[in-house]
Amino acid sequence: MGNVVIDVMLKPEILDPQGQAVNGALPRLGFDQFTDVRQGKRFLLTVDGEVTDEVLEAARKAAETLLSNPVIEDVVSVRAEQDVDASRAEQDEKDPGR
Amino acid sequence: MGNVVIDVMLKPEILDPQGQAVNGALPRLGFDQFTDVRQGKRFLLTVDGEVTDEVLEAARKAAETLLSNPVIEDVVSVRAEQDVDASRAEQDEKDPGR
Repeated sequence: MGNVVIDVMLKPEILDPQGQAVNGALPRLGFDQFTDVRQGKRFLLTVDGEVTDEVLEAARKAAETLLSNPVIEDVVSVRAEQDVDASRAEQDEKDPGR
Repeated sequence: MGNVVIDVMLKPEILDPQGQAVNGALPRLGFDQFTDVRQGKRFLLTVDGEVTDEVLEAARKAAETLLSNPVIEDVVSVRAEQDVDASRAEQDEKDPGR
């Protein structure tokens, strides 16, 4: 079972009220490291078999036509992910103390 | 200037109506490769300097406290991203015909 991850973000010139709300809340909670926040969408598409080039190409087309609005959004990334937990395992590896 | 990317997804056992709507629309548009769709959130946090371990730790705390609802959501990944366009360049490399 394979997964395709698609990341969609608002274009940089488009106002992002959700990101701004987070950006305003962070310093109030003591997080003053961050200068800007943008919020986007992440889609996890599952396929029965392996993630072939055809699947990736279909995912790319779906991302452009259904999952994003090309007037205001950019498809930032379309990539295969072997296992849903793979990125979490990777994160734990970087931060073994967690 | 560095960036931190935070991915937040609904827990697997939580119903995802947005993902289901996409999942229902895909076959109608001719995409019948995909068996399931889950929709989550992607945050791009900008810092002035480099993404140090302290920044990553702050981002992780912010992800757990402000950016996700731990009752229904998982913080899937918190990672540094050198440049906003880095992942796009990577994607173009994989798909030079685009």
